[in-house]
Parts: sequence; C-alpha cells; structure tokens
Amino acid sequence: MFQGNAIIGQSGGPTSVINASLAGIVEAARDPQAGARSAIRRTLGMRYGIEGFMRGEVVDLGAEDPATITALHTTPSSALGSCRHKVKEADFPQILEMLRRFDIRYYFLIGGNDTMDTIHRVETYCRGQGYDLIGVGVPKTVDNDLCGTDHTPGFGSAARYVALSVKQAGMLARDMKLVDQFVVFQTVGRSAGWLPAAAALAKVNEDDAPHIILLPERAFDQERFLADVKRCYDRYGWCSIVCGEGVCYADGTPISASRVSDKFANVEFGAMGGTSAAMMLHRMIHAAFGWRGEFQVCESLQMCAADRVHPGDTEEALACGRRAVELALAGTSGVMVSIVRESSDPYRWSLGTAPLAEVALGAKPMPDAFINAEGNFVTSECLAYLKPLVGPLPDYARLAGRPA
Amino acid sequence: MFQGNAIIGQSGGPTSVINASLAGIVEAARDPQAGARSAIRRTLGMRYGIEGFMRGEVVDLGAEDPATITALHTTPSSALGSCRHKVKEADFPQILEMLRRFDIRYYFLIGGNDTMDTIHRVETYCRGQGYDLIGVGVPKTVDNDLCGTDHTPGFGSAARYVALSVKQAGMLARDMKLVDQFVVFQTVGRSAGWLPAAAALAKVNEDDAPHIILLPERAFDQERFLADVKRCYDRYGWCSIVCGEGVCYADGTPISASRVSDKFANVEFGAMGGTSAAMMLHRMIHAAFGWRGEFQVCESLQMCAADRVHPGDTEEALACGRRAVELALAGTSGVMVSIVRESSDPYRWSLGTAPLAEVALGAKPMPDAFINAEGNFVTSECLAYLKPLVGPLPDYARLAGRPA
Repeated sequence: MFQGNAIIGQSGGPTSVINASLAGIVEAARDPQAGARSAIRRTLGMRYGIEGFMRGEVVDLGAEDPATITALHTTPSSALGSCRHKVKEADFPQILEMLRRFDIRYYFLIGGNDTMDTIHRVETYCRGQGYDLIGVGVPKTVDNDLCGTDHTPGFGSAARYVALSVKQAGMLARDMKLVDQFVVFQTVGRSAGWLPAAAALAKVNEDDAPHIILLPERAFDQERFLADVKRCYDRYGWCSIVCGEGVCYADGTPISASRVSDKFANVEFGAMGGTSAAMMLHRMIHAAFGWRGEFQVCESLQMCAADRVHPGDTEEALACGRRAVELALAGTSGVMVSIVRESSDPYRWSLGTAPLAEVALGAKPMPDAFINAEGNFVTSECLAYLKPLVGPLPDYARLAGRPA
Repeated sequence: MFQGNAIIGQSGGPTSVINASLAGIVEAARDPQAGARSAIRRTLGMRYGIEGFMRGEVVDLGAEDPATITALHTTPSSALGSCRHKVKEADFPQILEMLRRFDIRYYFLIGGNDTMDTIHRVETYCRGQGYDLIGVGVPKTVDNDLCGTDHTPGFGSAARYVALSVKQAGMLARDMKLVDQFVVFQTVGRSAGWLPAAAALAKVNEDDAPHIILLPERAFDQERFLADVKRCYDRYGWCSIVCGEGVCYADGTPISASRVSDKFANVEFGAMGGTSAAMMLHRMIHAAFGWRGEFQVCESLQMCAADRVHPGDTEEALACGRRAVELALAGTSGVMVSIVRESSDPYRWSLGTAPLAEVALGAKPMPDAFINAEGNFVTSECLAYLKPLVGPLPDYARLAGRPA
C-alpha cells in the first residue's frame, strides 16, 4: 500500500449527482475503518479538473467542514469546478511535476470517456517515469454513453428531468391544442439517444406525449418525419416531438446546422453558434403545415436540477465514489468503477470494474433492440431498462369528461 | 338566489395550479354546508373554454369521481382544455343560446384579463337580454400582470421554476467557466417582467447568478448590455443573463425579431416563427466577444411544472376557487376574486374582490420602485415582494476551497 496524498478531480459536464461521488471519495478517504488513514494522508481536490491542476490550483478537501461534504450529496454541478481539457503528450511532464509537488499517490477522476482516457494515459506515463500512482475512475455523464457500465450516475436524474418535462408539457399541449398544434423538446446527448429515449416513460395512455422520438442513432429523413407529425396531428389534434441535440441527416450533417438553414435561405445560420435542432424542427413543421408550436431547449438545466434527482441515482453516485477508494487501497489501478445490473424488476445492482483502456475507446449508442422498426420511438425492452433508473413519475388526474 | 346550473371554464395559458382553482369551485359547489346544493343543481365544465362552449362541448363535472377532483389539486395544465378565443359581438347570441340550453345561472371563468373581459361582456349582454346570470372570475396567470390583485395564482410556482433553474444553471456556469463563458435564460411573460425578476431570488452571494436581468419594462440598449456583460465577465469569469421573452428596443421592436437578424444579414430570420430573445442575446455576445455560451428557452415548461409548485400558491388557487362560489351564492356578480397582501414578513394574505371591468383594462407592469436605476436588475423592495410567493429555495453546498 502506497503512502501519500489523494487527489480528486471532476471533469466534463456536471450532473445533479457528481458531487455525491465526490463526497463518497472524501468520506471513504477519511474513514479510519477502511484503513484509509494509514495510506491516504491528505485528500486534495483539483480546481477545474486537470486544467487547474496543471497550474497548481489544488485545494485541501480535508479542511472542509464535514457538514459541507454531507451537503454535497444534494448539491448539483461540479463543486470543484470542471474542464474539458484533452490531455496532450506535452502536458505529461507538468502533470507529473504537480503529482510530485503534492506527493500524490492516489488519483481519482470523476467523468466520462475522455476523463477515463486521461487517467489511463497519466497513470501509464507515470509508471514509465518510475512514479508510483494508483488511478481509479468514477463514472459520470448524463448522456449515459459510457462503455463498461450498465449506466452512469447522473443519467437517471437527467432522464427524470426529461421525462417530467415531456409529461407536463405534453398535458399542456393537449389542453391548448386549439392554440398551438405541436411542441418540440430537445435533450442534450450529442451522439447517443439515451436521454430522448427516456421521454418515453412519460407516456401512459396512447395519446400521451411523446408521440415521436428522434434519436441520433437513426438518420433523420425530413419527409418521413413530416408524415409522422401529420399522422399524430390527424389522430390527436396535436403532436409532441422529442429530439436529441445531435440528430443528423443520413450524410452526417446535423439537423441543427447549415443544411436546413440553406433550405430557408439563411446560409449564415448556425455559424454564429446560436441554433438548435428543436428550432429547426419547429421551422420545418411551421413551413410545411403553417401550425403554431413551440420549441423547448433546456440545455444544461437537465444536468443540474437537484430537486429532480432520482434518489437511487444519488445512492449509486455515492457508492461509486466510496468503491473507488476501496479499490485504490486494495492496490487496484487502471480501472473505472462500474455499475452492474443484477435485475430490472425488482431493480438490483452491484458494483464492478471496467479497464480504463476499454472505457476510453468510445461512446456507447443505444442498442438496436431498444429502437422501434420505424426508428421514431423506443421499444418496451428499452422502457424496462430505463424505468428503474428514472423512478416512478407522478400520476396526474385526467377528467373522465362525460358530456352533459 | 338563482336556481340553475353552474359552469366553469379555463382560459388562456395553463399554470401549475389552475386545476386547484377548478377543484376549489367544484368542491364548494358540491358543499351542502355552504348551501350551494340548494342553488346550484349541476356543476358543468366547458371543454376548451368559451370556444368549446359555443360548440356545445360541455362536460358533467358532478359525474367525476371525487378522487379525480382531489387529484386536480396537484395536477398541472388545464384539465378542461383551454383556448385564447377573443369573444366578438357576433358570438353573444350563440353563447346565450348555450347558457339557456344548459340552464346556466352561475358562470365561472379562471383566467387573465382577456378572460375577465369575456365574463364582463357576456354578463352584461345577458342582463340586456333579460337572462339572469351571475359571473365571477378567478385570477390566473404565470405572468402576474393582472390588475386588481396583489398577485395571481400560478405566478409563484412559475417564478419558483425560474429561480430554481437560474440558481442551478448558474452554479453549473460558474463551475464550467473555463468551457463556456455565459448563459442566457429566457422566461415567458411578454409585456411584464415579473418572471425574469423572480430569478433574482437565486442570488445569495455577490457572484451568484443572475448577474443581469432584462425586463420588458425597460428599453434594450445593445451597447449598454454588452458593456454590462463584459463587466460581469471581468469580475467573475462568466456571466448569467435572464431575459423576458418580450424585451424590446426603444422603438418597440422585440429583440427576438428582425432588427437583430438584420445585423447578422439574416433578413428572413424570425419570420418563420422559430426564434427567441435568448438566442439573439447569445448571438450578440458571441459576435462581440467570441465567447462560448448557451441559451435556455423553457417556454411552457415553467407554466406546468407541478413538482416545483410553491405549496402556498396551490393553497391560494384553491381558496380563490372556493371564494368565487361563496360570492356567487351571495349574489355577487361582475367581480374577480383578488388576493390581498396583508403583510410580507411574515406573509399574510386575505381574499377580496375587484370589479371585472377594472381588471379587464390591461396588463400590470412592474412598478418603477422594483427596478434598479441602471434598469438591469431588481431592487430589494422587489425581492421582499417576491420572496413569500416563491418560497425558500434550496441551500446548496459551496466548498471553502482552501489552497493546499
């Protein structure tokens, strides 16, 4: 067992529960029962991830009031600050210098696949330089596109935000159909459809929102899409559409980018940075049918809505953080803590590990079995997967509406 | 006391608590204690407001399961369906015919100023035709721009959604400032700034979001705005901006419309119906400073987030509905139930009435005393007004961050 200091960093986009993972690591590193104190002298934190760390921005997490660490369990965003810095070869000497300066032997990063890649490469470099370092990753991303784990902490709560929003806005659209005929809700998750898919949990009755789900895993076909919208309108008098921000045409052009703009003669549109897939779908529908509608672009709000977390998500995030310390103290390095699904109904899970090198390989899309044949909704298999991660949704009243 | 049936309609945009007002009316109309049963034979509901009513779309609310009525207390949107139909002179004979057909003597509408105008004109017309009708209005609007009442049911919960969103997204923007430098959150409320103002409740520490609030009550000046944004960036490293959807230039052009588009050579932009003030601000900032940022456009999500209601809002909505029946049974017609603020701290309220004709006159803007001299934030007087309507916000952890 190495003796030295531990450091924790948060990386990439925040979630509603990433601070629970941070708290889990800090609590486990302080726990005399776990024998941590004999190995981990001080628990430090990187300000703004590896980017701040390279500049020596390191804080003393051991000096924090224990009440603050407890309050992190329910605090959204990344309390340490985060970054999206992609580590380059040229960064390694500086990183090693900082590791030496702060006598760090335990290195924990909470993040997605780029983050796991960072741990992996830093750990490999250090070993090559004769510096002993234990590196363990803790999974995090609202996108749920991380390989090597059943799902990621943070996803369930973001998915809950999406499902709640689509359910509530769908009721509103239904009740206002004489005024507005459609609503488009956009989720984050550039390359994977897990978040738009979660909207499907909002649907109880056949006419409930959502009616159409556009996933980045399927090429967008404008003609088919407009036909689907028309079919929903003819059946219900309104239409609810959920789309992932990264939905693309068959040639790989995002629907939020120039191709649609060209159709409407706004060639510069999209180039300024202010555009969205939902807005483009809104414009398409309005242009095709003349209907009124609205687009909803919540962006990072779905990543930090602490009042909408699924408690199970917090629990898993915390457990992943604690397990990272246990693994490190047992001398395990080069792995990410993973969540293993034992059963969906009743939901049972356990913790495992995945090699960092494997996790770093790329993003995990939705499997084909989770997407319907038409490519415009999810399957019941997908719903069974999602349900325990999002938790039960509120049951709202609906009038029987017996004619007088 | 007239004997006959009662009818209830919901009008305009839904809120998270408008169904509580509906439940309040139904419950009071069923209450044998209140002597309602001797006067009100049946309680009916208009489908899609006056628009459905004119087509004879009337449902029997007395036939609903009492459990459904109870569940309406916590059900968002407009359970009866709503409309935005502006009643014309030519509509009156048809409305009177329907009132006669369903033997309606008690006429309750839950809505904003257009709705109060509808009740007022229908009641006046009926009186002129020798048809006895008691019309009472119940206030509702997330915009809080209704005259004759301290505030409107529905506003507090929408304001809570705004404050929670800006608080959470502000933490995220702070923690991600190395990646994105600004965030723009847009609220609904076309002509009044009550909702963007409520975002100010998110601010506890000086650097907390929001930094700048743009209100429809003040003309937008791009140069001054960009200088404000730059000042925040220089001080905090990031900037949080909240804007009302209807913010306009001094000449009355909405910032969401063509004027900004022209600057970026997108002359058609805005004409398709898919645009927003927040997106325009995003483009302005990006164009001026080259910063990355995001815009958040939640639209009707803030009007129907039942899981984010302030319980006091539900209580008031319910009480307004019940009082409408009491007033009607006492023979009072031509009024809207109003909320009277007795005290802000501790918060105490009572119910009053306002003449429909007065409420119908127009929208209530924020008073000058609620807006700071620079026109880019609210005053402490405004915060004192807003606080009891929004309720306490969660207290999230912040690391002390002692350098190691």
